[in-house]
This record gives sequence, C-alpha cells and structure tokens, in this order.
Amino acid sequence: MTHNIAILGASGYTGAELVRLISTHPGMKIAALSANAKAGQSMAQAFPHLRHLDLPALVTIDEIDFGDIDLCFCALPHKTSQEVIARLPRSLKIVDLSADFRLQDPADYERWYGNPHAAVQMQEEAVYGLTEFYREAIRGARLVAGTGCNAATGQYALRPLIAAGVIDLDDIIIDLKTGVSGAGRSLRENLLHAELSEGTHAYAVGGTHRHLGEFDQEFSALAGREVRVQFTPHLIPANRGILATVYVKGPPEAVRETLADAYAQERFIEVLPMGEHPSTRHVRGSNYCHIGVSADRLPGRAVIIAALDNLTKGSSGQALQNANLMLNEEEEMGLLMAPLFP
Amino acid sequence: MTHNIAILGASGYTGAELVRLISTHPGMKIAALSANAKAGQSMAQAFPHLRHLDLPALVTIDEIDFGDIDLCFCALPHKTSQEVIARLPRSLKIVDLSADFRLQDPADYERWYGNPHAAVQMQEEAVYGLTEFYREAIRGARLVAGTGCNAATGQYALRPLIAAGVIDLDDIIIDLKTGVSGAGRSLRENLLHAELSEGTHAYAVGGTHRHLGEFDQEFSALAGREVRVQFTPHLIPANRGILATVYVKGPPEAVRETLADAYAQERFIEVLPMGEHPSTRHVRGSNYCHIGVSADRLPGRAVIIAALDNLTKGSSGQALQNANLMLNEEEEMGLLMAPLFP
Amino acid sequence: MTHNIAILGASGYTGAELVRLISTHPGMKIAALSANAKAGQSMAQAFPHLRHLDLPALVTIDEIDFGDIDLCFCALPHKTSQEVIARLPRSLKIVDLSADFRLQDPADYERWYGNPHAAVQMQEEAVYGLTEFYREAIRGARLVAGTGCNAATGQYALRPLIAAGVIDLDDIIIDLKTGVSGAGRSLRENLLHAELSEGTHAYAVGGTHRHLGEFDQEFSALAGREVRVQFTPHLIPANRGILATVYVKGPPEAVRETLADAYAQERFIEVLPMGEHPSTRHVRGSNYCHIGVSADRLPGRAVIIAALDNLTKGSSGQALQNANLMLNEEEEMGLLMAPLFP
Amino acid sequence: MTHNIAILGASGYTGAELVRLISTHPGMKIAALSANAKAGQSMAQAFPHLRHLDLPALVTIDEIDFGDIDLCFCALPHKTSQEVIARLPRSLKIVDLSADFRLQDPADYERWYGNPHAAVQMQEEAVYGLTEFYREAIRGARLVAGTGCNAATGQYALRPLIAAGVIDLDDIIIDLKTGVSGAGRSLRENLLHAELSEGTHAYAVGGTHRHLGEFDQEFSALAGREVRVQFTPHLIPANRGILATVYVKGPPEAVRETLADAYAQERFIEVLPMGEHPSTRHVRGSNYCHIGVSADRLPGRAVIIAALDNLTKGSSGQALQNANLMLNEEEEMGLLMAPLFP
Repeated sequence: MTHNIAILGASGYTGAELVRLISTHPGMKIAALSANAKAGQSMAQAFPHLRHLDLPALVTIDEIDFGDIDLCFCALPHKTSQEVIARLPRSLKIVDLSADFRLQDPADYERWYGNPHAAVQMQEEAVYGLTEFYREAIRGARLVAGTGCNAATGQYALRPLIAAGVIDLDDIIIDLKTGVSGAGRSLRENLLHAELSEGTHAYAVGGTHRHLGEFDQEFSALAGREVRVQFTPHLIPANRGILATVYVKGPPEAVRETLADAYAQERFIEVLPMGEHPSTRHVRGSNYCHIGVSADRLPGRAVIIAALDNLTKGSSGQALQNANLMLNEEEEMGLLMAPLFP
Repeated sequence: MTHNIAILGASGYTGAELVRLISTHPGMKIAALSANAKAGQSMAQAFPHLRHLDLPALVTIDEIDFGDIDLCFCALPHKTSQEVIARLPRSLKIVDLSADFRLQDPADYERWYGNPHAAVQMQEEAVYGLTEFYREAIRGARLVAGTGCNAATGQYALRPLIAAGVIDLDDIIIDLKTGVSGAGRSLRENLLHAELSEGTHAYAVGGTHRHLGEFDQEFSALAGREVRVQFTPHLIPANRGILATVYVKGPPEAVRETLADAYAQERFIEVLPMGEHPSTRHVRGSNYCHIGVSADRLPGRAVIIAALDNLTKGSSGQALQNANLMLNEEEEMGLLMAPLFP
Repeated sequence: MTHNIAILGASGYTGAELVRLISTHPGMKIAALSANAKAGQSMAQAFPHLRHLDLPALVTIDEIDFGDIDLCFCALPHKTSQEVIARLPRSLKIVDLSADFRLQDPADYERWYGNPHAAVQMQEEAVYGLTEFYREAIRGARLVAGTGCNAATGQYALRPLIAAGVIDLDDIIIDLKTGVSGAGRSLRENLLHAELSEGTHAYAVGGTHRHLGEFDQEFSALAGREVRVQFTPHLIPANRGILATVYVKGPPEAVRETLADAYAQERFIEVLPMGEHPSTRHVRGSNYCHIGVSADRLPGRAVIIAALDNLTKGSSGQALQNANLMLNEEEEMGLLMAPLFP
Repeated sequence: MTHNIAILGASGYTGAELVRLISTHPGMKIAALSANAKAGQSMAQAFPHLRHLDLPALVTIDEIDFGDIDLCFCALPHKTSQEVIARLPRSLKIVDLSADFRLQDPADYERWYGNPHAAVQMQEEAVYGLTEFYREAIRGARLVAGTGCNAATGQYALRPLIAAGVIDLDDIIIDLKTGVSGAGRSLRENLLHAELSEGTHAYAVGGTHRHLGEFDQEFSALAGREVRVQFTPHLIPANRGILATVYVKGPPEAVRETLADAYAQERFIEVLPMGEHPSTRHVRGSNYCHIGVSADRLPGRAVIIAALDNLTKGSSGQALQNANLMLNEEEEMGLLMAPLFP
C-alpha cells in the first residue's frame, strides 16, 4: 500500500531533502507540495536537481486537499508552523520539522522563541522526535516534533551517559561545528558564499542558541534534576554536516562502553573503536551518525565526538524515520543509502 | 537471483563509488574487494563512510577466488588494468573503468598512452561503454570498456549532432570544467587542498589530454570522416562534477531538437528547455546528465552545456548501468537515487 | 603630499578592497566613506577585517563635504552612479567603478543596461580605465570609467592581437570562469554559500552579458571594423579570480610574441613561457595579470588564458592605478603586494 | 641599510609566506633561498604566485655563502632544522620556524617529538618567539624559536589570564579549528582536496598534539605551578586561519578586561567589545590577531575566542616581526597589510 504524502514548505532545503529521500521510498507517494513565494513554480524550477522526478507543482497550502493525504511533513519556519498545523485536519498524521513543538513547556517555548505559543494543546500532544529514544511513543503519535539538528547531535553523544550517571552533570561542554545548510535558504548577508567560505567563526556564544532549550528539557528529564550544558556552535564552510565535540568528566572506558551498549541494536548509530573519531564527510547525505570517544590525557576526562548530516539524520532523514514508524512501515525504509564521499 | 561481484581497485574513488551504488542494489552482492597498498585493511579503514556496510576485507587480486564471481569491475590504473584482465578467467564478465580498452586501434592506444598495449586481442573484443549508444553490444559483451569521464560528457553533448550532420565538423570547441575527484586518490602536490581550493586553472591545454583519443575515434566513426575537436579541461575547486561548454556552428533550434529527440526515451539524460543550462551541483552523486542549449547572438552558432557527476554517470554509475545490462538486470537498477543538493 | 580620498559605496566588496589597498598607500588618506543602508555604522561593523584601521564612519553621500576631497572613488551600483556623479563638484577627480561611463555611445548604454543615460555629457568626457591602453588620457582625465572585470580580462588577452591583426576577427571565443565576489554583496538566493559552493554553471549564455558592450566597443575601435566575440561566463566556487580561456585562429607563436612584446614594459602583466598557463590562485589579492599561450593541436589555432583578481586588477586595483596617474603619483604605488597563496 | 636575508626551506608554505612578506619590506633583501627536492628550480616554478619578483633560484643549503647573510629564516622540518642550524656560522642571526627550539627541557622535547635533541646547547640559548611576551629577549637574541601556530593562538587567549590569576587553572579547554595549510605542503592522502573539502574532523584527540608541550611549558612557568590544559584541534576546509575557542572558569568581565589591558598597546592584537567574536576570514593574510570574550549563561564561566592566520601571525609573520626586532628595524615593518576579505 502506498501512502500519500504532503510536504509543506517544499522550497526550502529540508523540504527538498524530504523529496530526495521519498523519491526512492517504495511505500510513499508525494501527492502535494507547498511553497510560499515560489507557489506556482514547478519543483524543477525551485530545485533543478529534482528535475527528473514527476512531482506535483508547488502550490499554496490552501490549495491542498488534505482529504487524500495520509501524512504531512511541515518544513515551515517556526511560528508559521504552529499556526498552519493548528488548522490542519485532526485526521492527518504530522511530522513537524520546525522548532514549534519541541519544547513541552509553553513558558520555555516563549522564553527561547520570543512569542507566546499559538497551539498550546497540540504542544502537549506532540512527541519529541528523537527516534532512538522515543520510538514507541512516535509509533502511536499523531504529531511528532522533529528535533533541532544540533540538539540531535549533542543528545546522541550524551543521553546514554546522563541516563547511566557515568559523567559529572555540572561540567558538560558541547563545542559544535555545523555546515551552512542548517541556516536554510534565507537571504541573509552572512550566508553569502563570499562571506562564509574560506573561514570559520562562532555564533550564539555564551549559551544563547535556541537548541539549548531542547538540551535543558531532555537532559534534565533524563537526570531527574536540572542539567545545564555549555554549548557553542561554529559555522564551517561546508554545506552539510554537524560535528559535536563534547567534553565530559567521567571514566573514558565507561563512557565508550555506555554508548556502545546503548546503540548496539541501532541501525543508524555507529560507535567507533576507542580513540577513533568521525568526520562529517563520512556521513554526508546519509542517515548515519558516527560517534567516537577518546580518553583525555587528564585522568577522568573524556572527549566524545559525534557527526551526522544536519539535513538527513538531523532533520529530513529523522522525519522520514519517524513517518515510517507512524505509518507502520519498516523504520529504515528509504534511508539506507550510503554516505556520499568524496 | 543475486550476482556475486568483485571490485578490483576498491581503495580508489571509483571503487568506493561502486560499493556505494551496489550497497542498495537488490540483485548484486559484493563478494570480493581488492587493493594494492591497502590490502589487509577493512573497507571501513580505507573509506570510513562505508563503515556501516558488511563488506569483505581488502585483499590482493591473487587472493580472490574468481570461481564464484559473476562479474568483475576493474577500477585499476591504466596499464595495470590490461595486465590484470589478461589473466582473469575467460568465463568472467568484466567492466573495466580504466582507459585500457577504450581505443580500438593499438596504435592510437600507444600514441595517447605511451606504451604498447599488452592485451591487443581483448582490446578488439571490448565494447565501448557509453551505454546509450552501445546498449545492444554491451548486453552481449564479455568485456566493456568504461569511457573517460570527460569523454562521456563531451559525447553526450555532441554525438547526436554529429550523427545528424547539423553542425560544422571543423569548428567544435569543448571547454570543460571538472572537479578534482577525477584525478583519483593520488599523492600529487597539485591535488592538495591548499593547492586546489579557491581557484581554477586549465591543464593539458592545446589538445594533449588523452580523452581526445576517444573523441577522435568516436566522432570520426559517427561522421564517416576524420573529426578533430578542440578540448581544454579546467580544474575547479569541487570534488565532483563535470561541466562541458561546447561551441558549435549550426542552427541552434535544430541543435536542441536533435538532442531532445535523441534522448527522448533515455532515463538518465535530461535535455533542458531552450536557453536553460545545467549546474554540476544539480547532478551530484547521481547518474543523471543534464544538457542545455542556447543560441549565440552570432547567427548560426550555438552553445551546448552538459553536466554530469564524473564518479557516477562519468564512471562508476555508467559501469553499473553496463553491468546491469550484461547481467540481464533492469538497466537503471541501483541508479535512481536523486542528486544530493545542497 | 597626501591626497584626501572619498569612497562612495564603501560597504560593498570593491569599496572594502579600495580601503584595503589605500590603507598602506603613503600618498593617500581616506577622508570620507559613504554607504546607503549601512550609513551610521563604523567600517569595522560593515567589514570586521578592517577593524585595525582608523577610518571615518560610514555616512550618506549628502553628509560628505567634498571641498576637502581630492579624488573620489565611486563604487556604487550602476544607474545610481551616474545620478550621484552628475551632482558632484566639477573640481573633483573621479574614478567610477560602476558600468555607467564605460560605453561611449548612449544608445549602446541604453541597449545593454535598459535605461537612458542620465549624464550623457559626462559619458562623453569619461576616459575608459584600462590603464595599460589609455594611460595618457587617464593621466589628464577628470572622470575615469573603471572597466568591467570580465571585460578587462578578455581585453588583456586580445587587444594586442586584434591591434596587430594576427588573428581571425570573426572567430573569437572567450570562455570565462569567475569567482563569486564579482556579483557583489547582494542578497540573492543564487549567491548563497549552499547554492554556489561545490559546483559550477554558466550564466548569460549566448551573448547576453553586459560586458559584451565593452568588448564590442573596444575591439571594433581597435580593428577599425565591427568585431563581435562569443563570450560565456561561468561561476566557480571561489571568492576571487577570473580565468578567461580564449580560443583564436592565428599562428600560435606570433600570438604569444605579440602579447609578450605588448606587455614587455608593463609592471603588472606577466606573459608566461609558451605552453605554461596561469591559475587564479596565483594572482589572488594582487594587481597582477598572468597570461599564457598554447598552440592547439589543430594547426593555426591558439588558446590564450588570462588570469587576474576581479576585485584587485579587475576593479579596485585598476581604480587605484588610475587614481595614481590622475594624482601624479607613481602608477604602482600601493599595488605591489604579492598574491596571497595558498 | 638593507639586510641580506636567507630563507632555508623556501619551497614550503611558510617559506613562500616569508618571501611574500619580505617582498615589500624596505629594509630586507632576499639573498638566498634553499630547497631540498626542488633545488635547481626557480621560485616561479615552485610558487607561480611569486613570478613577478626578482628572486634567487632555489639551491641546496650547502650552496649558500652565509658570509653575506645577516639573518637566516629556517623553515625546515623539525629534526632537520636542529641539524642544519647546528652547522650554521655562529655570527648569523637565526629565526627558526620549526618545533626544534621551542621546548627548553631536552626531556620534554624528546617526549613530544620522539628523538633526542641534537643541539642541546642551542636549545638552551634559544628565545621563545611569542613576540608580545618575549620582546626584550628577542631583541638581543641570536636564535629565536618560532612558536607553534596553534600554540600561539591559545597563548594569546590565555597568557594574561593565567598571569593575572583570574581563571581556574585546572579547568581550561581549548577547542581549536585550523585551516589545512598548517599541515604544510606534504604528500599525504589526508591532505588531498577530495579528502579535506566539504567537512570537518578532529585529530590528535585526547591530548596528544605536540603543541601541548608549549602550552605546558609556558602556562606552568606563568602560573608558577603545573598547568595542564585540554586541547582538541580540528581541521576545517579552508587554507588559512586558526580559531581557538577557549572555555574557562572565571568572572567574564574580569577576563575581558585583563585581556584588553594586556594588549592595549599591542599593534597586532585586537580585543573586541564584550560579546563580539572574531572570524578567521577577517584576519586572513594579515599579522593581526582578534580576540573576543563572552560570558556563558552559567555564572562564573567565560568563552574566549581568538583568531589569527596560521601562516602569518602564526608563523611567518611572527618570524618577520621577531627578525625586525633582532635587526633593530621597526617591529611592524612589512606587516601592516590589511587582511584579505572576501
């Protein structure tokens, strides 16, 4: 049986990535694609790399008949997303890729995003979409909230450690490097090629990045007490990829073993041999996450490095993995392609 | 039925690309992988992006039992390739990705490659692997010679025009831009990141690039007379992708129509609307070739631009497409993934 | 004696490049900097790489007292430039970096730029700023029109050949590759890092690029007859640099000799030994232009390749070279820094 | 008066950078250039971007007459450097850019570099070349040991804080991102463009990078007790630039003030306003170092980010700055060019 799929916000990078992934998925058919400024264009105009596919044209959301749709991916800007989703039929399964339903507490949402939440009840209902840790809830969910791409990377490195109590909860630093596609297809001077290539810089320094809201919520829930990490993201001149370098205090061997045990049955998470470390190049375009651990020369300290592709495992791949669960498909369907290197 | 596949030279980029493509091919199983300096390593050591796959370790060619193998891809350096292939069992189907069997005339081979051919009889037997134009011969072939990646790009732009006689045969210029992976994984100072990034330059200027041997052979055969094109390749700071800008004299509308007609039934070749042009970014990691045509402001002249991914449609994707034909599989099996953008 | 300099449009890339160059020029002092949207900002805010300099803040043009200014660089968008320059005091020496005064014929201007010229008299008075060929006129000029960066590169390769009559005037092709800074600091989707990196494409295919207006004007004047070249620009993923690959019919040795003779006394133009070719990497950040020539394998045809930095020799370096002449300074003052490699 | 300069190891990147800088230095003349494999070549062959300069050809070290030389830069591999320097005339002033004379304790040297030191007496005599902190000793030195480029970046961020006692000495983390030119012009597979572009990874994880020897020596001396930092370098796909993100425990305002005070009179060190942070793009090709400080959201913790160009301020620029002092020239001579952006 083939499921009919709608993608709202298909003219952005996560929308295009969803189309790329679904295009070879045997159980899904793209039935509707929406865009805002680009409504009226064909997908080949918005994204010439998808030219070979037979796809519906980009329309406004209002033009879509959701009666035929089984599942809807929302790849809209945050704030817009909650407004749109609040008006969609209740019968529709939804995977939201925005930030709108990640934080359970409306006050947290307002603090990090600056506006009161417009769909508080749905916020309550939404399941946090980090597949490996919320699999059963996702399977039964109507609305799944895709995680932040940085938030996913940091959590893959840390959740099992916090849950197991093998590291000091008061001294966790996540120094993260991300490619530029995470910022989306927005017209901002600081995203121009001439501004971004050939260099690196940090942003949101000092604990102001919004994905901290997710770290706080998830890590505190896991630990049963407040956990506050330090987190500094950096932009690197590559389109895809996140590398999180995580500094913790705890016994390095136990750190690695805890991670290896936690992910032993996970198809998409690879824990490397002790002392080996991942590269974003080696997960590009794939749904895999690679994690390495080293002991630091300072006793009792470990360095954990996790890598994934922000557009795949960090957003659209995760979204498809969740949609597979919600639709009773094989979880990995459409997601087993190898990374593209070089 | 699953075919057992061997890949010789699996530690290079075209070898890794074959593994990537075959990893999701339902009708093929990788049974043996060879390497030279890296024999003894696992594929995950040579190529960490393939870590998630269950693959045989890299061995020397002599360690492979070819009795079980249905088809062998040879991704070896030219000259080595002919020596190795000459010693493989005659029962084996072979797709060679080197330059060794592309030129039918041993004198041509020697002139362009500098050494006498060591397997002249096999050279005669080999079928030139430009799938769309040699499909039937490839289906029945024992040995298929993969084309040069630049040679493939130029031929996609020009073969139908030369065959149809719509352009002046004495004034054809191919100005080509190629990514760096085409040069392979070789330790050469001019392939270092610091030497290649952030700039561009031409090489083999003036008609000295070896792929001219293929242009000469194929275009002359098509035209029934000697055809000699001008060809200047340039290196651009990107890993994958070839863009061939071709200048011809002929009626632009007829040029586009001839191409559109020739490729109307071809799954992997897309001829764009008049005046639109391709980008290498929009075919990356895929088996698609995009071709655009514009009229020049000078009457009777046209510009044709063709783009493909040198590692996929230009070599390993082409090789798999040919192998599918040789093994009676669907031609496009394992090759329908969309390009990776951004 | 120190000359007071104003730069209008200092928040763009050519403006910043002028500041960079003038910052170590012993005979010039930056007295005023203008910007439009960024008026009110310090130069360190607009361009943090200039933070160490003691510079005037960015102001609107109206806030500048031109009474103190000896020479004014206009790095404004075309059309704006002619309107602003028409209102500047006649006593001011002006180097305009826009397209507004490059074409002498108002009809040509209107045809290529789409609007009637608003300062036709000044258009007549303006001297075309290709220093090596208009040196004496520039020395005495009040208004110098900086050339297009692509137009400069093509002319360095071709002017001596057209003047000498050593090549066929009806079969000239300029296939050009340019870095992205030539498009300026504009908020356009196709200039985003994620859209531009890792690939290449052509634009303005078929003879529609505005710099053709300059080629037509200059080459026809040199030849004493109408000359129309073919010209296809391509964007490559590098910030700086233009490489023009020029295909001509003419005796290769004579081609190289004509160029070598023409530039023998030129400090900034290097003609390479026969068969050697330049790279944009090797002129980056400098005022040098490197030119190479090869014979093609087809008798009587030559390939000429010229490389320069579009922001330096192609615009701001050229502008400073011209300003030096206009102010009776040493022509090369402030321009002798070596290229930055790697 | 013009000083005669020799550069040993001129075919590497730091050698070429020295030539670039010295080429516009009014008080120095390059009298000799040595290379190993490239001896016999002209500098234009080894580095075409220096083609416009009138330079001596590359020769072997033995061919150089050091009688005429006032100061010699050694840009040789470590271990080779100590052997060569031990044989140079005692009358020669020497700036060594290798690692050979950075560590004062021969046991430390042997532990980090794996071989016993071959010139222990000179090791004692050498002055550590971090100009801003050893200025007076450098002025009188015969042999100055250039610092590691990573070591310099980390020290600029931390020395004043350790000296002032404003941070916790037991919890310092340096997460560093470096461009690829720091690895030199070596033929290693992991330095190929196709291996390095479009991604990032860490190396020497866990405290194994040799520059830790310098941190240990310098920080411990400053603190008067053993100080051991954590340090993880990452490679980013850019040619030049180091960004050190430093995590410390201490009052953020005091951290910034201590740095601002320490560098108030330093021409090349810019401390940014609180909360602003540098980019490697904004120091490229220059001798400037930019430093920013933010308070973390966790009270009592600060993040310091320092950026410099590894080939300029991190090695060859530093070397020239030191040479200026040793030769009684103005310290900043030849070093005031603005960064190259974009």
